[in-house]
Amino acid sequence: LIIGIDVESGERSFKEYVKGAITSIKLHENICISLIGNTEKIINSFPDITENKRISLVDSNEIIFMDEEPIKALKKKKNSTIAIGINLLKENKIDVFYSPGNTGAIVCAAIFKLGMIEGVKRPSMATYFPRIEGGETLITDIGSNPDASEINLLHNAVLGMSYYKLIWKKENPTVGLLNMGGESIKGTSILKKAYNLLKTIPSFIGNVEGYNVFNGSVDVVVCNGLTGNSILKIAEASKKYFISMIEKKFLSDNYNNHEYKKIITKKLLPVYFGAAPLLGVNGIVLIGHGASSIEDLLNAITLAIKLNSINFINELNDNVKKLLKKD
Amino acid sequence: LIIGIDVESGERSFKEYVKGAITSIKLHENICISLIGNTEKIINSFPDITENKRISLVDSNEIIFMDEEPIKALKKKKNSTIAIGINLLKENKIDVFYSPGNTGAIVCAAIFKLGMIEGVKRPSMATYFPRIEGGETLITDIGSNPDASEINLLHNAVLGMSYYKLIWKKENPTVGLLNMGGESIKGTSILKKAYNLLKTIPSFIGNVEGYNVFNGSVDVVVCNGLTGNSILKIAEASKKYFISMIEKKFLSDNYNNHEYKKIITKKLLPVYFGAAPLLGVNGIVLIGHGASSIEDLLNAITLAIKLNSINFINELNDNVKKLLKKD
Repeated sequence: LIIGIDVESGERSFKEYVKGAITSIKLHENICISLIGNTEKIINSFPDITENKRISLVDSNEIIFMDEEPIKALKKKKNSTIAIGINLLKENKIDVFYSPGNTGAIVCAAIFKLGMIEGVKRPSMATYFPRIEGGETLITDIGSNPDASEINLLHNAVLGMSYYKLIWKKENPTVGLLNMGGESIKGTSILKKAYNLLKTIPSFIGNVEGYNVFNGSVDVVVCNGLTGNSILKIAEASKKYFISMIEKKFLSDNYNNHEYKKIITKKLLPVYFGAAPLLGVNGIVLIGHGASSIEDLLNAITLAIKLNSINFINELNDNVKKLLKKD
Repeated sequence: LIIGIDVESGERSFKEYVKGAITSIKLHENICISLIGNTEKIINSFPDITENKRISLVDSNEIIFMDEEPIKALKKKKNSTIAIGINLLKENKIDVFYSPGNTGAIVCAAIFKLGMIEGVKRPSMATYFPRIEGGETLITDIGSNPDASEINLLHNAVLGMSYYKLIWKKENPTVGLLNMGGESIKGTSILKKAYNLLKTIPSFIGNVEGYNVFNGSVDVVVCNGLTGNSILKIAEASKKYFISMIEKKFLSDNYNNHEYKKIITKKLLPVYFGAAPLLGVNGIVLIGHGASSIEDLLNAITLAIKLNSINFINELNDNVKKLLKKD
């Protein structure tokens, strides 16, 4: 298993990602890593790295920045870490590509170079929310396709259900459409049409709302990329808000504050995989948060190993085909 | 000041709203209340109510349910609490109308009967999120217009800024567009167009994300009704999730659990007004949560008194006019 890591496109220094890579090969015996970035800079900072047989360096002298228009940037920057990474994946020189960079550029490169799996028009990015009674709820899309049509939403459902089944070994995961109320007549015109398409899925439970995400009443929550991205970021920001409030309130109390904070943040921190898979493209692409930390990268590598071990792309393909045939 | 209360359309019993009304006239000297609902049922449950000079009963024998299609329901049910309440507001027989009912039906009735203030095409529902360092951030729209166009988003901004100014006495509240990243090229095609329209507002700070809502970096956050509704519900659900996690963790510890829970819920509970004003229509319409409690109703009445005291509709009109002229 060879994992390609884009060390340049994130908001943190390339050094963080190189350190993460070095740590990860110590943790996992059977992986090799290709670091995609400025080779000279990497060697200057980590002179011993050239002696590491399980780490290879792939030189890239261009970076696509967060504020660049994806298609223009990809045309202009053929040697960017994102373009090179997706090409390596296409050519099977790596098995997984991880990038914490410009989501739009990663999505466009993946669609154009890797292509879509059969029957699916647009990819969907998926992540987990924690549940009160344990377990997790999959939310998809969280940002790859903000302008999702009703067909895209149906495909998000099918991709999400297949992913859920493969990771959580649940045969018919339930699926719900994130909307403004339980009633089928709610929401935008696209949501109303999507509701009618989703009705053909036997495990569709109808419209869902915020509380369903946390209470375990639905496995896969389908939404457009704008709404999914917004709820993910509000949930993360809510967490910080609550932790701040608790700290303010209890800082003077007789708990050991350091211990206390650790318990709260560990216990309350939703356990994400560190990166969201881009479901629907012909290749394993993991998109990290722009500000991804070493820990996030290590979680992403754990996910990469898991996905590789279950022959993910073929399995996803098979499951999606079966689900789409039912419609 | 006469406040009309729809006692039938919420998810709770009419008795809750009647009790809330009785409590509120004890708390506030200068208000009268019109209870809109089944008069006979109300008198059966509260026989003394006919002797209360500050409470009047307006009979309505129809209810628009949550799952009804708004326009059809309004055409069919001319004697519904929502139709009667909006009519009373139109005829100046009440000064404020409060309903915890079908949002779509309230919005449609308000648009058709009351009309819009000059220059604004669609109303926007607004509510507050709490900030880490105190104060509150206004989010608008939270559900009245899920399919918002770029013009609707501009109007949401102008309505939100005017409301913020009137309530919080801040001359030029800052405004941000909820999007998937800070860069102007992010998001749906409508968001990109909206960004260009909002740029003409001097206090526009650009795109904002989840963390901006809680950190005080922006006063008014603009979004479509679907996204606004979703983030509000996720924030509420996150709160429940965190409280559950904390309770599980600390239930066995030496805090007085009852006291502890009270502190956490009181301290962490975002202080909403109990109902969201429907900004942009020619009349003060407050829309409550379907499951609104007596406390929510009392908060809504406090907001009604506040809005009435500042001559809200005229002031909002003037402020919106000024802001739209600048563009």
